[in-house]
Amino acid sequence: MAEAEEKLWEIVEESEIALFITQADGYPRVRPMTLIAYEEEGGVWFATSKSSRKVEEIGKNPNVTVCFLDLEGSAYAQLFGRAEVIEDREVKEEFWDEEWEEYWEGPDDPDYVLIHVQVQKAEYYLLEADELWVVDFEE
Amino acid sequence: MAEAEEKLWEIVEESEIALFITQADGYPRVRPMTLIAYEEEGGVWFATSKSSRKVEEIGKNPNVTVCFLDLEGSAYAQLFGRAEVIEDREVKEEFWDEEWEEYWEGPDDPDYVLIHVQVQKAEYYLLEADELWVVDFEE
Repeated sequence: MAEAEEKLWEIVEESEIALFITQADGYPRVRPMTLIAYEEEGGVWFATSKSSRKVEEIGKNPNVTVCFLDLEGSAYAQLFGRAEVIEDREVKEEFWDEEWEEYWEGPDDPDYVLIHVQVQKAEYYLLEADELWVVDFEE
Repeated sequence: MAEAEEKLWEIVEESEIALFITQADGYPRVRPMTLIAYEEEGGVWFATSKSSRKVEEIGKNPNVTVCFLDLEGSAYAQLFGRAEVIEDREVKEEFWDEEWEEYWEGPDDPDYVLIHVQVQKAEYYLLEADELWVVDFEE
């Protein structure tokens, strides 16, 4: 893995805040979300409710941005990609976390779905060094 | 001012982080910015460089979202509005801050411009109470 990509995933891992940004109704719309997994080749995973507004918005426009804020490290990253809602039973079971029993009955709960974002491009900015880095995942 | 609006501006004032989000090239694009002023009737002001990418993006699509994160208060707010780049000499002079001499020669520097966002709608979310509030500024 190239050095720029390594640093990108380091920022993602160390970020205290992840923001999931859709753009379905004329304006960007933000909400904090918890990253559940990432793929170094350019993917990030989230769990959500099928009835949530973000799922409806992805249906209208799948182009989203996920922004990670690493406050301690004075860096932020943004991942630009296409979001897809995943309802496959095996994948849902694979990612299931028992702590989610507060929200869903179990991995088979039809309201529990995953969001996968296929990252096309990412950028990160190191505040102290004043450096902007771009990582292209489509190459 | 209604109670919901009061709380909105309280979150804006107490937020440690403000994010300015454009959507010119297919994906939302985020950068942290420093709020320099707000108007209770629905406006926020920022200072930036005329040659910055955000100014170019506002030219393509002025519909932006400004997101405020109040980490201590466990709340976040987002303001949806139309951004305008302001180059009026008097307004630039009015907002000029001597600390900006690091970036620009003075209030007359043509690269120093202001961004005004006319807020149409805002939302804020109180994490602990699990409450979402909507404020409509067009009423």
